[in-house]
Amino acid sequence: MNTTDSSPTGQATTVTGLMADIAGTGRDAMRGGYSRPVFSSSELELRSWFVDQAVRRGLDVTTDRNGVLWAWWDRPDGDRRNALVTGSHLDSVPGGGAFDGPLGVASAFVAVDRMRAQGTAPGRAVAIAVFPEEEGSRFGVACLGSRLMTGAIDVDRARNLKDEDGRTLAEVCAARGLDPEHLGRDDEVLATIGQFVELHVEQGRGLIDLDAPVAVGSSILGHGRWRISLRGQGNHAGTTLMTDRRDPLVATAQIIADIRQVAREQDGARATVGRLQPVPGGTNVIASQVDLWMDVRHPDDAVTARLVETIGRRVHEAAAHEGCEAHVTEESLSPTVSFDAGLSSSLSTVLPGAPVLDTGAGHDAGVLARDVPTAMLFVRNPTGISHSPEEHVEDDDSEVGALKLAEVLTHLSS
Amino acid sequence: MNTTDSSPTGQATTVTGLMADIAGTGRDAMRGGYSRPVFSSSELELRSWFVDQAVRRGLDVTTDRNGVLWAWWDRPDGDRRNALVTGSHLDSVPGGGAFDGPLGVASAFVAVDRMRAQGTAPGRAVAIAVFPEEEGSRFGVACLGSRLMTGAIDVDRARNLKDEDGRTLAEVCAARGLDPEHLGRDDEVLATIGQFVELHVEQGRGLIDLDAPVAVGSSILGHGRWRISLRGQGNHAGTTLMTDRRDPLVATAQIIADIRQVAREQDGARATVGRLQPVPGGTNVIASQVDLWMDVRHPDDAVTARLVETIGRRVHEAAAHEGCEAHVTEESLSPTVSFDAGLSSSLSTVLPGAPVLDTGAGHDAGVLARDVPTAMLFVRNPTGISHSPEEHVEDDDSEVGALKLAEVLTHLSS
Repeated sequence: MNTTDSSPTGQATTVTGLMADIAGTGRDAMRGGYSRPVFSSSELELRSWFVDQAVRRGLDVTTDRNGVLWAWWDRPDGDRRNALVTGSHLDSVPGGGAFDGPLGVASAFVAVDRMRAQGTAPGRAVAIAVFPEEEGSRFGVACLGSRLMTGAIDVDRARNLKDEDGRTLAEVCAARGLDPEHLGRDDEVLATIGQFVELHVEQGRGLIDLDAPVAVGSSILGHGRWRISLRGQGNHAGTTLMTDRRDPLVATAQIIADIRQVAREQDGARATVGRLQPVPGGTNVIASQVDLWMDVRHPDDAVTARLVETIGRRVHEAAAHEGCEAHVTEESLSPTVSFDAGLSSSLSTVLPGAPVLDTGAGHDAGVLARDVPTAMLFVRNPTGISHSPEEHVEDDDSEVGALKLAEVLTHLSS
Repeated sequence: MNTTDSSPTGQATTVTGLMADIAGTGRDAMRGGYSRPVFSSSELELRSWFVDQAVRRGLDVTTDRNGVLWAWWDRPDGDRRNALVTGSHLDSVPGGGAFDGPLGVASAFVAVDRMRAQGTAPGRAVAIAVFPEEEGSRFGVACLGSRLMTGAIDVDRARNLKDEDGRTLAEVCAARGLDPEHLGRDDEVLATIGQFVELHVEQGRGLIDLDAPVAVGSSILGHGRWRISLRGQGNHAGTTLMTDRRDPLVATAQIIADIRQVAREQDGARATVGRLQPVPGGTNVIASQVDLWMDVRHPDDAVTARLVETIGRRVHEAAAHEGCEAHVTEESLSPTVSFDAGLSSSLSTVLPGAPVLDTGAGHDAGVLARDVPTAMLFVRNPTGISHSPEEHVEDDDSEVGALKLAEVLTHLSS
């Protein structure tokens, strides 16, 4: 990391400058882009960068019992109740882009710098939060930090979530100095959050089509993840006749085709298989088992439920046809969330030209919405591509985003 | 490892006893069975066990320049030309059985012990060989040790083969004390091999159906491996409409279905996809790339070529239909091999009751057949399942196998 050009004491900081600090951290040579799974060395390096940036600004850094990092711009009397909170996350999907998460954190620092440069004295505490495991790329549950904080996930289940190396969340937390017994709903921290405004790179093409740099978020599509496990008969690829096979990867192929078909037949639906593991995974071995993960989203939660039911039926048919057993397990399910109407309307008042967009991507702001008023700002992504190295934000747009965030925070904290 | 009960100096050694020595090495808790990739800590542990067993028997241990391990029962004059060689391999597929490879090595030691106990004085040198990377589970090319020794693989290509961690064969060899510049055809070693007889667990149901413990091998089905790479457009699973997708995993599903169909329509053909990697492999990410590996086998090499051509056409059709690019690369191809007629007929003379079977599985004896006379013995596998923890050999059958091998070696070395 190179932090020499981001001192808040000299020249005005820029989002581009802060993003350049961390541009070398967690690059994935194989996939391209970045792989920064939560509590990996690269994500920990980004956390250190966050602490360093907070300390340079005289912000008070805390880590709560669910591993959420906080940087506090306190009131003179130190009262943190009803704070105005912004921030995002620093973890990434495997081979993700540079902006998904870090843009919201870097913009928050720049917004604080701008507010201070303009002599803003907030009427309440302002804080920047970094939520762990937003992508769910290590433990399989997206927005895990905010789910733990709000109690949206059973804490025993969470503690036993495993990463690919078989390490549980409890073990990994303990190794990082977090007591796994203290994970779970945190009313004390929730009581400090008066409002939460998350800035995030847009993950679709909405702002391209509207030719605008920043939008106000309206809602998050309901979405969930399901694990589909298929068991067949592992055997030798050369000695087992085609008629003697019970190959779970052949059943998987039918299931992927079915998922595509079911989703295409339903307006507004999205269903994806992006992760798949044959066991044992040898070229000359008929798999004995395949695990695949399905992501399903639709604005209407009843439709999502119906889609998953239909797909579940097709999974069992495809498995039975190949003589395999199938199990479908829900790993997470989030209903469609509309952001707080009053707060979103305040954002639109401050940013009168900004379009209002919904999103198909999940966010911590969506999970927190069940407990506190939340809203979002989206910054234009000129490729429209996300969760890929091709995700992008133009320098000008990133500075406009931070400026708009500063205006919003100034308005809300006054 | 527990080597206390396998001393060749006391009680008669048994195959069961030797197999028990190594039963704890390389167990795979996740997949079940054993994962012993070449030059991994577990395979190196098995190599140490081999050296230890050889030394206990006063056999002279050498490692040739392709990493093949040798244990020599020398003639009094030390002449190793025209040696009678037996042996097999110690590496495994991921989650493989206990017997595939090690049974041939353990049986070789027991056969030597029996010959000595009976006072056999071989008329020529007898050697036990252990071939590296027989399964191709680390570097993707099966029978890599024998292919290098015979020059059946281009040595530059071999040096640049990569394992899953991106390490080349050259790097891994260097780390193990093998000079990568010295890999490749070894005429000196080949000149020492008069005949090669490999004992191996049967990988199909032939001996179950014939109700016999041991068979003489006749031929190995031609087989090959192809890597199919598909490139689409990586993107966010929630924000990308179904109509905007170019998903290489959807193309893969069609390809797996096509491979199954093409193979089923051709008598005697086997075609398998057992290994598959979506990139980046996140649940909420449409894959940008999928690599899958195809294994195809048929007794008639012209039919294998035709099958692969048909599948290749279907691969490109499926990819184009989804807006993806496809590349099909041959990783290895072995024609159908008939073992040496004279040598196999000698085996049948020594073992008059033994049935004669072909096999769909590749073996080093098949690769070596282009340079030296080779033959095989198969030992009954009561499950008929192979490349799986369910592979099995009954204790009695393993002892019968070693006894038959001793009879064959005694006859051939006299």
